[in-house]
Amino acid sequence: MPQQGTLGVAVIGTGRMGADHVRRIDEVTNGARVAAVVDIDAERAKSIADRIEGCSAYTEPAAAMASPDVDALLIASPGPAHEAAVLQAFEHDLPVLCEKPLTPDAASALRLIEAEQRLGHRRVQVGFMRRYDADFTRLKSLLDAKEFGRALMLHCQHRNASTPPGFTSQMMINDSVVHEIDTTRWLLDQEITAVTVLRPTPSTAAPQNLSDPQLVLFETSGGAVVDVEIFVNCGFGYQVRCEAVCETGSARVGEESGLLTSSAGRWGGAVPQDFVDRFADAYDRQVQRWVDATRRGEIEGPSCWDGYAAAAVCEAGVNAQAIGRRTTAELIERPALYR
Amino acid sequence: MPQQGTLGVAVIGTGRMGADHVRRIDEVTNGARVAAVVDIDAERAKSIADRIEGCSAYTEPAAAMASPDVDALLIASPGPAHEAAVLQAFEHDLPVLCEKPLTPDAASALRLIEAEQRLGHRRVQVGFMRRYDADFTRLKSLLDAKEFGRALMLHCQHRNASTPPGFTSQMMINDSVVHEIDTTRWLLDQEITAVTVLRPTPSTAAPQNLSDPQLVLFETSGGAVVDVEIFVNCGFGYQVRCEAVCETGSARVGEESGLLTSSAGRWGGAVPQDFVDRFADAYDRQVQRWVDATRRGEIEGPSCWDGYAAAAVCEAGVNAQAIGRRTTAELIERPALYR
Amino acid sequence: MPQQGTLGVAVIGTGRMGADHVRRIDEVTNGARVAAVVDIDAERAKSIADRIEGCSAYTEPAAAMASPDVDALLIASPGPAHEAAVLQAFEHDLPVLCEKPLTPDAASALRLIEAEQRLGHRRVQVGFMRRYDADFTRLKSLLDAKEFGRALMLHCQHRNASTPPGFTSQMMINDSVVHEIDTTRWLLDQEITAVTVLRPTPSTAAPQNLSDPQLVLFETSGGAVVDVEIFVNCGFGYQVRCEAVCETGSARVGEESGLLTSSAGRWGGAVPQDFVDRFADAYDRQVQRWVDATRRGEIEGPSCWDGYAAAAVCEAGVNAQAIGRRTTAELIERPALYR
Amino acid sequence: MPQQGTLGVAVIGTGRMGADHVRRIDEVTNGARVAAVVDIDAERAKSIADRIEGCSAYTEPAAAMASPDVDALLIASPGPAHEAAVLQAFEHDLPVLCEKPLTPDAASALRLIEAEQRLGHRRVQVGFMRRYDADFTRLKSLLDAKEFGRALMLHCQHRNASTPPGFTSQMMINDSVVHEIDTTRWLLDQEITAVTVLRPTPSTAAPQNLSDPQLVLFETSGGAVVDVEIFVNCGFGYQVRCEAVCETGSARVGEESGLLTSSAGRWGGAVPQDFVDRFADAYDRQVQRWVDATRRGEIEGPSCWDGYAAAAVCEAGVNAQAIGRRTTAELIERPALYR
Repeated sequence: MPQQGTLGVAVIGTGRMGADHVRRIDEVTNGARVAAVVDIDAERAKSIADRIEGCSAYTEPAAAMASPDVDALLIASPGPAHEAAVLQAFEHDLPVLCEKPLTPDAASALRLIEAEQRLGHRRVQVGFMRRYDADFTRLKSLLDAKEFGRALMLHCQHRNASTPPGFTSQMMINDSVVHEIDTTRWLLDQEITAVTVLRPTPSTAAPQNLSDPQLVLFETSGGAVVDVEIFVNCGFGYQVRCEAVCETGSARVGEESGLLTSSAGRWGGAVPQDFVDRFADAYDRQVQRWVDATRRGEIEGPSCWDGYAAAAVCEAGVNAQAIGRRTTAELIERPALYR
Repeated sequence: MPQQGTLGVAVIGTGRMGADHVRRIDEVTNGARVAAVVDIDAERAKSIADRIEGCSAYTEPAAAMASPDVDALLIASPGPAHEAAVLQAFEHDLPVLCEKPLTPDAASALRLIEAEQRLGHRRVQVGFMRRYDADFTRLKSLLDAKEFGRALMLHCQHRNASTPPGFTSQMMINDSVVHEIDTTRWLLDQEITAVTVLRPTPSTAAPQNLSDPQLVLFETSGGAVVDVEIFVNCGFGYQVRCEAVCETGSARVGEESGLLTSSAGRWGGAVPQDFVDRFADAYDRQVQRWVDATRRGEIEGPSCWDGYAAAAVCEAGVNAQAIGRRTTAELIERPALYR
Repeated sequence: MPQQGTLGVAVIGTGRMGADHVRRIDEVTNGARVAAVVDIDAERAKSIADRIEGCSAYTEPAAAMASPDVDALLIASPGPAHEAAVLQAFEHDLPVLCEKPLTPDAASALRLIEAEQRLGHRRVQVGFMRRYDADFTRLKSLLDAKEFGRALMLHCQHRNASTPPGFTSQMMINDSVVHEIDTTRWLLDQEITAVTVLRPTPSTAAPQNLSDPQLVLFETSGGAVVDVEIFVNCGFGYQVRCEAVCETGSARVGEESGLLTSSAGRWGGAVPQDFVDRFADAYDRQVQRWVDATRRGEIEGPSCWDGYAAAAVCEAGVNAQAIGRRTTAELIERPALYR
Repeated sequence: MPQQGTLGVAVIGTGRMGADHVRRIDEVTNGARVAAVVDIDAERAKSIADRIEGCSAYTEPAAAMASPDVDALLIASPGPAHEAAVLQAFEHDLPVLCEKPLTPDAASALRLIEAEQRLGHRRVQVGFMRRYDADFTRLKSLLDAKEFGRALMLHCQHRNASTPPGFTSQMMINDSVVHEIDTTRWLLDQEITAVTVLRPTPSTAAPQNLSDPQLVLFETSGGAVVDVEIFVNCGFGYQVRCEAVCETGSARVGEESGLLTSSAGRWGGAVPQDFVDRFADAYDRQVQRWVDATRRGEIEGPSCWDGYAAAAVCEAGVNAQAIGRRTTAELIERPALYR
């Protein structure tokens, strides 16, 4: 892997997120290029590769990894395909930026943790892009500096305008609240030890069989309590807010800002309509930082451990949601590689 | 010399709240005058009465009620004294504005409800003054109009700078969260059916033996879920916020406003330091509206039922706090007088 | 005039403002009652008086002043009638709260100043109610304390949704900007020495012949510069904002606050639709403070000097508006009575 | 090793802004590389070039332009050196991103306009980076869409914490207000036709001989009026705000946002301390967009005409500042190349 020079990235999976990452690396990211795209749909892969100079198309991740042009992998295929791709990457000792979730469940995430330990060094960064959002980064700095003492509680809201067909209550945990799971663990530097889910009478705007909204509660290893409103059919846009309540002060991000207007008897601003709009900069920064680190031969950002912990807490959350009671989240002891 | 039609009010209890109500009726409220003050400390009562034209001092509520100058009672004595005073007021059929709590527990509140039913008409308004705050009133109007559909959740924060000596975890429910209990019941027009209390590791700023902050959860008869942060030693001031999450929109009150400054690398405003500062107008408006209604021979505002329901939920809350589990709140069937 | 007891007020003029003051004194103000109403329309006066206990109706201010029930005057008749009414009040040595403007021009205001000096003590408070607005009061305190050093500039915006028929460019100065004239003089404790008016191409929403909006500039005796946007057909509501730029910080009032909503892709709040909505509390507080002071035998608040200075600056402003050039505002030396 | 199609940029001048642009192109910008750096200080140039693969050092702009590795120029040398460098770039027909000001005065800017017309196509983009700020871009879109009708006024504030030694009143126009000059012309799509400068008594925090703050007024060809507070020793940070007052609504950018804290009796956020902090993203986006356009063989963004117009208005502004009167700004007829 070149220490100098442009990083050749293979993007695995070219669906919505994958195609966006191809565009990002091609047009936004400094110091990297799309060397390969991989998709089981050969035609789709080829049509993308043809538009980018020096980019090859593959249908198998392994084939791309074997190319001398490929220095690193960005995995954006569906979650169930992640484990195999990451294991192959370990064989080639290639750095990986793996879209969240690391894998769909804790057991498979644990297998990756074991494999990475056998490899002996970290290779995987998980795509929890909120860690690269400018406001969340400021909040993290404030908490790390203990400016207001220890964090005692987090209040989180996570709202989507609406859900695509087939969205389930379990996905509210696995696909949506998983971000608050990582945010909680990252901001507090603590593991989540128990989950409780409260389900109010659903909104009439929610699709049938979807219990929306829900209130998800976390307890952490350091004794903090976290409440998360997850509301995926709020109708009015995409809103992510987080307030950290500390011993001598509180700090919030995600409040309204930007262009303010007054007209027709109202003042205010626009609510972004989806996560791409809200977190576009965070996605750009995430990939850029991963490329920069990879070119230096380093690894930083969320690890397999973070992917595993999120998966384990999601499992507890889905269970808590189903049985309507507090459920503990059990983690293995943290391996030395991830300390 | 009082103009004809002016309401003669006896203020029972002249501690912090009582003395403030005396000042309010004397200097702020239109259409009323302080006709009597009652305190077990005779000297204290006399020194206040002497400063107000036409005001008599008593040590017994009953003596004041017997005076022809007294048209109505404002009870601001300690909670345990409320029941006897209200019962005596019923004997004289006098209108009462009773500071919260109505009584210290549900059983005694129930006795007042029974007595008022025997009396046959409402005489008591309970001092839940948030119902008279301009911002909360706007929120109530928006919810009543179902502008954004049904309310699904409330997120509440209730913070005090610090607590006086002797403040207990139970008082966090009975004296502080009781406001959110009434706010929830009033805003949603539903009863609270269950309470859960989560206790994070206390702040080091909290006095020993005080589990501060806490997260209190309500479930309501209409299926709504409410979370309340109660943090009575937050250090930085007095903050009360409430967000109603509805089917097609959310609405918040209690956000920062007023004088905005930029200086020394910071922008922002002042945080009020106590509830008198934050809710001064609500207190004024509460007494004014009570006086106005009383002079018209009417009764409005929070009733004995509201006082009883708050007491019953407080009992459930204190229990939930102690046992660390969800506790149901059981209410008697709502009597016709309060429908 | 009674030092104790309820203040008997005669309200002169029962148009929009006058009728509102009658309601205020009758229903809101503590310590005062409407003893008399005066209107050239006898029937109108009588119909109001009939609804208030102990209130008499008159068609002549002098007749009301002669009544033993009248302790003080609130003048809310049209501006041209103020001079005569105030002079008569001086004859009866009665305290006066006079709606702005004191008089319609500087010459007549000066005659009142001379008369009040002959009387030998202040009797008149002018109705610049912004001085009683909670936010403006906080701004004044900050400036008086020189928290951020000396004020160097003020930026003001004054917007109305729309104007009634017959509203002229001159009225934009005399009826609207007159508030910023008083605000400037009060906040800075300086006189205005020159006025410049810039007239952008009018809004198509402005009535024909109305040059709306305009930018009005003040220079003050202490070397401060003030810009005022006056826009009386902005369409979206009533907005009054003021930012004081000081040596080490800036401070603003009038920013958005209150109930915040998120819905239909927008977040924000309501813009009040007129000055009664925005400044209701200031009006209440103004009259209350005047009653309180009058009952103590004192006079405070904006004086005849403030009314005269506003009139003189309005004259300079109307002139600057007409000739399109900077115009100096000349004041007589400030008499001892007003220092 | 640069990928094919990568734009080789020579950065002329490696002072504060130049060094920052070198870092930007090397680390942030996609699709470009620093092929050469030019500085009269040969050692400085060499030490920078040595850290970047494939980057050569020069002391003469002409020498860099002659290199086959150089595809485009980013000029960040002092303003007086811009004219010669741009003229040489025209000889080589190279695309140029020229830091503002285009040149220090209108006459020299006009010479560049004439030379670019002789060249027959646009080659120069001027570094008015606010046009790339996310919030200003939203404001521009709203104005272009005439969402609230025509813009009637702009209110602008431009504040710096403090000035370096040697900063003059003229520089307040030429270096600071020049941004509002471009913002006004860009947002309104109109030329500025007259300038007036008002000078309040300076802040005691201002260095001797610096008349700080000032209020600068623009009148535009479309009849709009613009006021600009320029305050370069405000002490508390860097603040840039702009409100467009339109026929049926107003729109503002630059208001406070980001991380909100409550502590020690205050709520609020941090004020950025300089323009790099506030406009970092705009700088990144500006260079990226210039690189993208240049690689497509196109030119967009602020032109020589914009540079000339800014210089001409600055001249009028400095004159207005000196004589204390309104000064007209005269522009040549806009050449076809810039329409």
